[in-house]
Amino acid sequence: MSRDTATAEVAAAPTVAELRRSLAAWRRAGEAVALVPTMGALHAGHLALVARARTQARRVVASIFVNPTQFGPGEDLTRYPRDPTGDRCKLAEAGCDLAFMPTVAEMYPDGFVARIDPGPLAATLEGRFRPGHFAGVATIVAKLLLQALPDVAVFGEKDYQQLLIIRRVARDLDIPVQIEGVPTVRESDGLALSSRNAYLTADERARAPLLHRTLRDVARRHAGGDAAAAGAGTRALLAAGFAKVDYLEVRDAETLDAPHAARPARVLAAAWLGKTRLIDNIALVP
Amino acid sequence: MSRDTATAEVAAAPTVAELRRSLAAWRRAGEAVALVPTMGALHAGHLALVARARTQARRVVASIFVNPTQFGPGEDLTRYPRDPTGDRCKLAEAGCDLAFMPTVAEMYPDGFVARIDPGPLAATLEGRFRPGHFAGVATIVAKLLLQALPDVAVFGEKDYQQLLIIRRVARDLDIPVQIEGVPTVRESDGLALSSRNAYLTADERARAPLLHRTLRDVARRHAGGDAAAAGAGTRALLAAGFAKVDYLEVRDAETLDAPHAARPARVLAAAWLGKTRLIDNIALVP
Repeated sequence: MSRDTATAEVAAAPTVAELRRSLAAWRRAGEAVALVPTMGALHAGHLALVARARTQARRVVASIFVNPTQFGPGEDLTRYPRDPTGDRCKLAEAGCDLAFMPTVAEMYPDGFVARIDPGPLAATLEGRFRPGHFAGVATIVAKLLLQALPDVAVFGEKDYQQLLIIRRVARDLDIPVQIEGVPTVRESDGLALSSRNAYLTADERARAPLLHRTLRDVARRHAGGDAAAAGAGTRALLAAGFAKVDYLEVRDAETLDAPHAARPARVLAAAWLGKTRLIDNIALVP
Repeated sequence: MSRDTATAEVAAAPTVAELRRSLAAWRRAGEAVALVPTMGALHAGHLALVARARTQARRVVASIFVNPTQFGPGEDLTRYPRDPTGDRCKLAEAGCDLAFMPTVAEMYPDGFVARIDPGPLAATLEGRFRPGHFAGVATIVAKLLLQALPDVAVFGEKDYQQLLIIRRVARDLDIPVQIEGVPTVRESDGLALSSRNAYLTADERARAPLLHRTLRDVARRHAGGDAAAAGAGTRALLAAGFAKVDYLEVRDAETLDAPHAARPARVLAAAWLGKTRLIDNIALVP
């Protein structure tokens, strides 16, 4: 299980009991633990989370679990990309100590019913288009945090609303963990790395970087006082071949309420290229 | 803070930070911790929980917090009995090590929003008459468990449905704690001890033991094959001066569904004497 054992694949724990056994040994040795929750199909964005985790703790656990309760009916649960062997090789190379890879039955045994309602932050933006999504996220992340009780847990800013909700839930429920956010990793053309980018056709992939470029335009124009910047950005995406824009909005960076000039803001969007839904967000630089 | 310091009142921690400081010292010394969550106004039933806790762990923390989110509009939040000094004396005498006595602002700081939905167990019996009650209970108990991370937490069977729900939530969310249930402590005439018994007039107090007697009758008759026993019990309570019977039912002791002859069952009731609502329950002995 230790980093010293040379293996091509990181050790895997398929059960909570095995996860806790490894963690208990590290705890006894006085080693801090960081957790990186993922749904697998790992890319450089995930590996940046592992790299950050390694700066925070001696031991790093990555979880790989495609959580069914955060997918709505008609969403891409069954075709969500999976690559457990590739994931374990990447994690080993990134210096991760353990992959926690539970089954659905391990996480949701017969009779499972409890659910965490993250409150109003979950109702806006993504929440309007994916009802129940953030309750599913909050519940599974709380479970992972309570299974591992890490010192630190690391999440990407790519899922910015999710990061805010996880911070809120951890604070409200007094989960004793520090939540770390890591900036989005992008392709050289600006496209945010995402496991779902694998769904894009060549033509869609060529158009996809426009999402990030548009967010930057909106941020610059909004910071310059143009209150219509987000609407113009939406029209630009549609004109460039995006099939639909679920939302493109400037929001307060902490509350996701309407932005205030004096406070940090964030530009967030979800837009469709063909059958693929992309999300992205950036800080608004005043 | 230690049991060795002779004081008439147990030491009190008013903040989560102070609670965690005491707990961290005990943990470093390798001492197990048991938590006894209460709403104060302590009686011999609570002290039985402390006594059980002492058999389970070297250190015992009792929390005293009248949790507003588990009271509905029109319920007795504002007049709920409070006796912090008396409580601390009783806890000291019972061998409790620390009273965690947070303020409402400490438990629900500005911006608090998260909530635990305990699922279907919360919708029946008490849940039908106190909507939102068990979400409030589940959320505050989860917070207390995550603030203290005790090895064991002890609850009374007097609140039987609550005990089942707390077990369910702890299991579903992987809270690393053992939940212990302790049999109801009763007056010599059978009345279950409750802080709310203080509301009863002398006349009501004289009638109150009939609740327990009726539960025993219903249990005996149901076990003997009388499917109408619960209905007869309800009529007996009303005839004896109970103002209203919210429910009196025989249920499966684990699921609270309709009872099966082959499985343990429980008889549960809530009934009003004047303006005071009493609850009680007993095991059904086949």
